[in-house]
Amino acid sequence: MANEIADKKKHIVIVGGGPVGALNACYLSRRGFKVDLYEGRNDIRQEENATGRSINLALSCRGIAALNHVGLDKRVMALGIPMKARMIHLPNGELYSVPYGKTGQHLLSIDRLQLNKDLLTVASSQPNVSIHFNTKLINCDIKKAKATFSKKDGAEITTTSDAIFGCDGAFSAVRRQMQRGVFNYSQEYIQHGYKELTIPSTKNGEFAMAANYLHIWPRHEFMMIGLPNQDKSFTVTLFMPFTKFNALTKGDEVVEFFKEVFPDSLPLIGEELLREDFFKLPALSLVSVKCSPYHCGNTVALFGDAAHAVVPFFGQGLNGSLEDVLVFDGIMEKHENDFDKVLPEYTKVRCKDGQALADLSKQNYIEMRSSVVSLWFLFRKKVDNILTTVLPSMFVPKYSMVAFTRTPYHQVILQSKRNDKIINTALLVFALFMIGACFCLFTSYKDGSVTDSKTEL
Amino acid sequence: MANEIADKKKHIVIVGGGPVGALNACYLSRRGFKVDLYEGRNDIRQEENATGRSINLALSCRGIAALNHVGLDKRVMALGIPMKARMIHLPNGELYSVPYGKTGQHLLSIDRLQLNKDLLTVASSQPNVSIHFNTKLINCDIKKAKATFSKKDGAEITTTSDAIFGCDGAFSAVRRQMQRGVFNYSQEYIQHGYKELTIPSTKNGEFAMAANYLHIWPRHEFMMIGLPNQDKSFTVTLFMPFTKFNALTKGDEVVEFFKEVFPDSLPLIGEELLREDFFKLPALSLVSVKCSPYHCGNTVALFGDAAHAVVPFFGQGLNGSLEDVLVFDGIMEKHENDFDKVLPEYTKVRCKDGQALADLSKQNYIEMRSSVVSLWFLFRKKVDNILTTVLPSMFVPKYSMVAFTRTPYHQVILQSKRNDKIINTALLVFALFMIGACFCLFTSYKDGSVTDSKTEL
Repeated sequence: MANEIADKKKHIVIVGGGPVGALNACYLSRRGFKVDLYEGRNDIRQEENATGRSINLALSCRGIAALNHVGLDKRVMALGIPMKARMIHLPNGELYSVPYGKTGQHLLSIDRLQLNKDLLTVASSQPNVSIHFNTKLINCDIKKAKATFSKKDGAEITTTSDAIFGCDGAFSAVRRQMQRGVFNYSQEYIQHGYKELTIPSTKNGEFAMAANYLHIWPRHEFMMIGLPNQDKSFTVTLFMPFTKFNALTKGDEVVEFFKEVFPDSLPLIGEELLREDFFKLPALSLVSVKCSPYHCGNTVALFGDAAHAVVPFFGQGLNGSLEDVLVFDGIMEKHENDFDKVLPEYTKVRCKDGQALADLSKQNYIEMRSSVVSLWFLFRKKVDNILTTVLPSMFVPKYSMVAFTRTPYHQVILQSKRNDKIINTALLVFALFMIGACFCLFTSYKDGSVTDSKTEL
Repeated sequence: MANEIADKKKHIVIVGGGPVGALNACYLSRRGFKVDLYEGRNDIRQEENATGRSINLALSCRGIAALNHVGLDKRVMALGIPMKARMIHLPNGELYSVPYGKTGQHLLSIDRLQLNKDLLTVASSQPNVSIHFNTKLINCDIKKAKATFSKKDGAEITTTSDAIFGCDGAFSAVRRQMQRGVFNYSQEYIQHGYKELTIPSTKNGEFAMAANYLHIWPRHEFMMIGLPNQDKSFTVTLFMPFTKFNALTKGDEVVEFFKEVFPDSLPLIGEELLREDFFKLPALSLVSVKCSPYHCGNTVALFGDAAHAVVPFFGQGLNGSLEDVLVFDGIMEKHENDFDKVLPEYTKVRCKDGQALADLSKQNYIEMRSSVVSLWFLFRKKVDNILTTVLPSMFVPKYSMVAFTRTPYHQVILQSKRNDKIINTALLVFALFMIGACFCLFTSYKDGSVTDSKTEL
């Protein structure tokens, strides 16, 4: 039965050779499909100075689970640098850390470009997978699964397959074709842009800051983060409103700004490198994309950023994208590769999670740049930690559900709302009880009962 | 000063010859601009069976105010059929009316196509306005205000102007160019589609139902509405989930469905006509579009559905669109036609209203198909009417603010939330007071005090 259906649908065209497209090729090959993967850019494995998407990657549970299937999880875990906690840098130079989860739980700082290279290598070694670089989608008929690509030399090629999988990122050309029909879609740019800087390794070739942390300089209106790299440097990303970026037009102004706002980072980055890096590129924009459905008929499906581009503040963009492939594979298994059933169910199951992920990511920006320094946040983290220790099967904090479990994102939102309600009510009751107790004590003390009880001792 | 600036920006290309494009041409001509208006379709004035957008139009205060400027308001008011109230048709055939506002306040049922024709005639008679039909936008460089159109014979023409005004509807080609940059955009299709039917005039050439009402058949999950036409017919629009439309595949099924759900309408439409009309076209979809900004630099602005397509349940789609032109004209006056200032301010002022209009329109669908038959709705309408009579300067109900004032849409939402809060609190206090009073009366009665007081009489 499974083979019969697989025979009906056996040739897939994947658009996009990023990590999601490459991983998808591996999964489909394992199911016996013939896969042609088309990527507009050159093969990044052959480029010396190839740059992937710039913000580097905090890999967690979902991404690792998806990589497990192709045997890359162990390699990534060996090469990644564990980040067990946030390291908060205050404006006065003070530091303190806030753990991400229980002991042993951590994020992995990894090189996004290296991961992409590894996935391409694994994909191209699979049977029935062909990868075509420098081949850009220019048009597609989504109902007929017919796609036209242009090659670097201007030549055009047209493919007809059983289905097209759009893994072509936030500005997906496949999705653009779907948008012409009845299709819900939103793109939202936040008011903040980002620039990438570097904290190089020290003269002794060591990390310039504690390595096993995600460093955060939260400054309410904006923030800076630093993730450790294998070469002992840190990739530093500054997120700020565009108006603020535009106000800094000279090297001296940038240095002054850093002296005032991120003083401890300045000697680590170095004035010279800061002046150089800051003006290398304009501030880049951050977009959040939601859409539905994730499929069209039995011929097209969207994965990763093409389905749900998110702002990078939960470190879940690629984790959620890789998980799409894993979730899809589960549905393929359930419906024995029957695309008539698989594609609609993929939309039904995954759309609400993609939308929840976009919402969670936007919310976490506020947490990262502001709440993380509030007393309430720190107090709640302590309460959460106590509850996780005392009631491990009943209580998992929101961050842990996202980063260290595979709880569907939309359930994370529901569950954490419930948690907040229960905890806030319990804290209120506790506070009222304490006030009541103090009042009783005070009254007893005033009318002499406390004194009396003392005399009884 | 004004002329100096007008000299700098004097040639505008309008894309779209619907009511909004034509009205805009009139306004700009009055300000001394040279206008070229391009419309993809044929000239509707020369077509015998031209069909405009199908749902016919309930014109109200905002639309009339915008038409006033070009002297069309009087003609429209003379030709339009006043609808002073909703006429609710219950499944058992019972009827009752719910007024739209105070005595004298009404909506005007008008022929959308005739309005468009009249506006084209007025526009083409203005100095410096040229209208080009059968000329479709295929590409534009929004920063250079350069646009390429294709004519019916395949010939291409390219225009360079000082600015392009996109009045080209919900699927605006001008907006599509803006979407390539940093641009917030959402399109959302509701689960309901619509089909258009007709209740013809009677054999005696009279209206088959009371003429001066907007007839509504609210059925919770779906609804039907009827608006009177000049030829004494009614245009009837049925809104239903697509799943329901798709389930009706044969004439007999449709007739059975109408017998069960809209029994009183069936003899008015006629079985034969119903069977014919129902399958003439597939059910059409309804989209809600929000975007921001409404401009790009000093070269492009969006108007009407191109900026804010809305579902038709508040009858405000075209009213709000025509008002865009009026609002824009006010900003032109304020900044003496200086596009560097006018275009950003147009976005600042109008974007939040376009978004509020989309929200109001979605909310009103629930009101029209469900709330309108609830006791609470009818009770609140009575309370609102009393408050409007007693405190006319302090209290204006939401529907009246939208239909009979020019209160900016975003303020309507804020104001009506405030109204609801105050009224609901007042009603609660009143209810508690009444319960308290009853309780006192009951207690007095029980302990004899009421009897005593009676004996005192």
